[in-house]
Amino acid sequence: MDKASISSTEGKPIRCKAAILRKAGEPLVIEEIQVDPPQAYEVRIKILCTSLCHTDVTFSKLESGPLARFPRILGHEAVGVVESIGENVDGFKQGDVVLPVFHPQCEECKECKSPKSNWCTRYTNDFLSNTRRYGMTSRFKDSFGKDIHHFIFVSSFTEYTVVDIAHLVKISPEIPVDIAALLSCGVATGIGAAWKVADVEEGSTVAIFGLGAVGLAVAEGVRLRGAAKIIGVDLNPAKFEIGKRYGITDFVNPALCGEKKISEVIREMTGGGADYSFECIGLASLMEEAFNSTRPGSGKTVILGMEQKALPVSLGSYDLLRGRTICGTLFGGLKPKLDIPILVDRYLKKELNLDGLITHELSFEEINKAFDLLAEGNSIRCIIWMDK
Amino acid sequence: MDKASISSTEGKPIRCKAAILRKAGEPLVIEEIQVDPPQAYEVRIKILCTSLCHTDVTFSKLESGPLARFPRILGHEAVGVVESIGENVDGFKQGDVVLPVFHPQCEECKECKSPKSNWCTRYTNDFLSNTRRYGMTSRFKDSFGKDIHHFIFVSSFTEYTVVDIAHLVKISPEIPVDIAALLSCGVATGIGAAWKVADVEEGSTVAIFGLGAVGLAVAEGVRLRGAAKIIGVDLNPAKFEIGKRYGITDFVNPALCGEKKISEVIREMTGGGADYSFECIGLASLMEEAFNSTRPGSGKTVILGMEQKALPVSLGSYDLLRGRTICGTLFGGLKPKLDIPILVDRYLKKELNLDGLITHELSFEEINKAFDLLAEGNSIRCIIWMDK
Repeated sequence: MDKASISSTEGKPIRCKAAILRKAGEPLVIEEIQVDPPQAYEVRIKILCTSLCHTDVTFSKLESGPLARFPRILGHEAVGVVESIGENVDGFKQGDVVLPVFHPQCEECKECKSPKSNWCTRYTNDFLSNTRRYGMTSRFKDSFGKDIHHFIFVSSFTEYTVVDIAHLVKISPEIPVDIAALLSCGVATGIGAAWKVADVEEGSTVAIFGLGAVGLAVAEGVRLRGAAKIIGVDLNPAKFEIGKRYGITDFVNPALCGEKKISEVIREMTGGGADYSFECIGLASLMEEAFNSTRPGSGKTVILGMEQKALPVSLGSYDLLRGRTICGTLFGGLKPKLDIPILVDRYLKKELNLDGLITHELSFEEINKAFDLLAEGNSIRCIIWMDK
Repeated sequence: MDKASISSTEGKPIRCKAAILRKAGEPLVIEEIQVDPPQAYEVRIKILCTSLCHTDVTFSKLESGPLARFPRILGHEAVGVVESIGENVDGFKQGDVVLPVFHPQCEECKECKSPKSNWCTRYTNDFLSNTRRYGMTSRFKDSFGKDIHHFIFVSSFTEYTVVDIAHLVKISPEIPVDIAALLSCGVATGIGAAWKVADVEEGSTVAIFGLGAVGLAVAEGVRLRGAAKIIGVDLNPAKFEIGKRYGITDFVNPALCGEKKISEVIREMTGGGADYSFECIGLASLMEEAFNSTRPGSGKTVILGMEQKALPVSLGSYDLLRGRTICGTLFGGLKPKLDIPILVDRYLKKELNLDGLITHELSFEEINKAFDLLAEGNSIRCIIWMDK
C-alpha cells in the first residue's frame, strides 16, 4: 500500500468501484461511487479482500420489510487498511490493518464491561441505521449523487468503506489477509461458540449441524478443546472429507438416516446423547433435532444459524426439564476487540488450523460468481480480491 | 422413637396404616397395609412426617397411561427414621434420620461421578418401576393381599415405606423434622436451581414465576446470592406478603398487567430484561413469558415446573439468537446425597431462612384436607404428622 496515496485522499471524498445491489435477487452491479470522509468516531478503510457469507445472500434476496433497502452495498467479512480517520478516533492510524465487524463493542456500556456477555447494549439493538452514530446518514453516493445504503455497519463490497470504531478491530499485519477476513465473521463465530458459549471440555461428545465455514470452525474449536467424538451432520458428502481436517470423527448424512430421526442416530452414537450440539444452518427443525440430540442432565445446544424464515423453535417441555440447555449466540459470544486479536495470535502460533476453508478466489469483477459457488454448496469460503 | 420396637420388627412384615389412592381423582383412603422387609440395597423407614407437593396432586388425577396405576401410595416429600436395612446397605443403620428423595443418585455412573450433572444415567430414565432394582415388585400389600403400587420410589403417605439406598439421604438429627421434609423435594429444587443451575451472582435482577414453595425457595436462594432485584410473579396477592420474607423486592400480578405482556412489564422494570428468570408453575405459556423476560446477551431462564399438559415450549428463534439461554432441571441440579446435607447445615447455621413455608399442619387422618388446602392456593406447604 502506497502511503503517499493515502495521505493525498484524507479529508476528501474518494471515487472508487463498488458492487451495488440495486434490487432484491438481482446480480450485483459494479459501479463507480463516492465514499465520503469519515466523521467523528469513524474510520475510512481500503478493503484488501472480502468474502461472501450466507447472511449476504439472505439479505440480497430480501424483498420487503425495514431490512430490505436498495441500492445497497453488501459484504461484511473483510480485511482492510486504514486510509484516514475522523475526529475522536483513538487506537487507529493510517496504514493499520483492520477487520470491520458487524457486531459492535462500544467498550463503555455495562455489558461491554462485563465478562458475561458480548451484547453491547448501547448499540446492538439497532440493526437498521446506516452509520452507527448518525442514523440513516450514508457515506456512499452513486454516480447520480444518490445515497447508497450501508449493510450491517460494514459494507465491504467496495474498494473503500467507512466504519464506526465500535465495529473495527486492529490486528497484527503478520497474518495473511485472506485468513484474517475469515475471522471477521463466520470462523470467529464458530470458534467463539465452542470456546466461550459452550465452553466444551476435554473428552466431550459433540454434534455439529451444517459443515460450512461456521460449522467447520466449531469443529476446530472443539478439537482444540480435546473433544473425544465430533459428529458432523451435512447433506453434502463432499463436506465430510474437509471435515476430517478439522477433527470431525463421525459423519451423519440425514438423507441416509431412513426412518430414524437425526437425533435418534446421534443419541445411539453417543450412548444417550451428545454433550454439546451446534446448529450452524438456520432451520428451526434442525435446531429442534440438535436439542434432542443432547444427553439429559447436562446436554447443551448452541444456535448459531439465523432461522431463514424467522420460525419459532418448539421444544418438548419434558425434554427441557430433563436437564437440557439451549442458547443462541451472535458472533460466538466474542467481544470483537478483545477476542479477535487472540484468535489471530493463536493462528500465528500455528495452534488454530484454518487451512482449506478458502476453497475459491475471485477478482472483484467476478463477485457474482461467488454467489453461484455458495448456492452450489461446494464453496466453503470464496475470497474476493479487490486489487486483482 | 423406641429402639426396642425397631429391632422387634426387623426381617418381618410390618402392618401399619397407609393412605391409598384407589382410583384417579378420588379421596385417599386410610387402610391397614403390610410393608415387607427391605431387600438388598433397600431400607425400611418409619415416616415421621410428610408434606403434599403439586406433583402428588397431578398424579392423583391421572386417569390413563403407564403412570396412572392403582391402588397406589402417593407422597414423596418426607422425613423418616431407619427401622431396618436389607443386605448390601452401607451408610445407613437403625435409628438414622433420613430423607427419601424421588431423584436417584447411584454414586457409580459417569454422571454421578461428574460435577456437571445430577442425571444419574443408571436410574433416572426409569420412572415406571415400583422398586428401583426389582421392577414392578412391590413391598406393599393391602388387606386382601393384593400389591399396592409405589410412587416415584418414595411413597411416603404411609407409616412405613421401603426405599432404595439410591433414593435415601442421611441427615443430621438436629434439624426439625418438618423443615427437613421440605428439603426432600420442593425447597431443595428451588435453592438448587438458584445456586447450581442458574448460579446467580451478586447484583443480579431476577424474575420468579409462581410463588409456591419452589418459587419462594428460589427467592431465598437468589437472596443469599445477593440479587439486587427479585421480582415475584403470582396471581394471588397473598403470596406477595410472604414473598417479602424471602427477599422479594417487587411484585407483578399478571391480572393487573392490562394490555401488556408480563415479559414486557419485567423488561421495563429491569432496564431491558432480567438477568435470570425461573418458571415454577408448569405452564408452557409462562415458560415462554419467563424466557422473553430476560435480557439479550446473557439472560438465562430456568424451568422448574412440569408442564401440566406436557405442551411444548415455543421460543422465537431470533430471541434465542440474541444470546439468551433456557434450561430445565429436575431437583434443582442437586445431587441428593451430596447437596441435601449442605442445605441442612446452612439451615442449622441460620443462613438459610425457611420459616413460614409451613402454613398448615394436619394429622395423618386428615390427609385429604391437605389436597383441599393446596387447591385453594393459600397453603405453601402442609405438614402431615404420622403420629398425631
